[in-house]
Amino acid sequence: MPRRRKPGSACATTKWSLLAPANPMDRLDRDRTPTNGEVDNHGRTGEECRGNEAEFIAMHIVHVHVHVKPECVADFITATLANARASGLEPGIARFDVVQQTEHPTRFILVEAYRNPAAQAAHRETAHYLTWRDTVAPMMAEPRTAVKLVNLHPDEAGW
Amino acid sequence: MPRRRKPGSACATTKWSLLAPANPMDRLDRDRTPTNGEVDNHGRTGEECRGNEAEFIAMHIVHVHVHVKPECVADFITATLANARASGLEPGIARFDVVQQTEHPTRFILVEAYRNPAAQAAHRETAHYLTWRDTVAPMMAEPRTAVKLVNLHPDEAGW
Repeated sequence: MPRRRKPGSACATTKWSLLAPANPMDRLDRDRTPTNGEVDNHGRTGEECRGNEAEFIAMHIVHVHVHVKPECVADFITATLANARASGLEPGIARFDVVQQTEHPTRFILVEAYRNPAAQAAHRETAHYLTWRDTVAPMMAEPRTAVKLVNLHPDEAGW
Repeated sequence: MPRRRKPGSACATTKWSLLAPANPMDRLDRDRTPTNGEVDNHGRTGEECRGNEAEFIAMHIVHVHVHVKPECVADFITATLANARASGLEPGIARFDVVQQTEHPTRFILVEAYRNPAAQAAHRETAHYLTWRDTVAPMMAEPRTAVKLVNLHPDEAGW
């Protein structure tokens, strides 16, 4: 499929770069690998999708943004590190990072890298997650939010 | 130092949990390791700060939030993956992840994990960064933003 340059734009557009299927699991367009320089929703060429004859496996990544009450920072960290250490032992979890904003120490991000959505569902049934959820509930300064993401780099072997 | 519970609060407060020194590099309070159950700004006990007699080394982590024009998604990914692959070879960079929002494919986060702030300064002088910066400039839907963070988990060996 030829790429068309939008008049006045810095970029060419393709059918693939604008697709946003209802089901995120379909986003790699597994039924049809891009060919002849086309790219899929993630900008990957057919060669990049296929790799060395191996199918690209998208990670299921979640950034959980947490804002805690100032007096709860220490207790939140204690509870969250316990959960992170236990979560890191789950087979479906590649990374479970806990980071704190340098300039706003009451704000944290949990960077959760699951092998697939089922791994997140399994995590939510673990004792350590349920304990964490209940322990930190009264510590929230506002409801936490989650952003769902997919890895473009590195590929699944790098997590 | 005894921890005092704020009336009506779920949490006790400590001197350490509320410190936010002007210089982020001072945040671990290196002049005085917490003792007797105290925690530092990051909720670490003295034992956790000291580890096995080794000083805790804070990572310098940056989340760069990027919103690109819809027609630029594919070109942005191509330029950004090239930069990410080259950046991963820099000695001061532990990880350089590129992730894309599942529900908003024009929004990306670059998760940059530097060993220290000097590593970020060095990165900004590399040819691959400068090329990326100039290449993606016209692709932005809005100015990108950066959030500075420090790792609580895992420690520096886990990045």
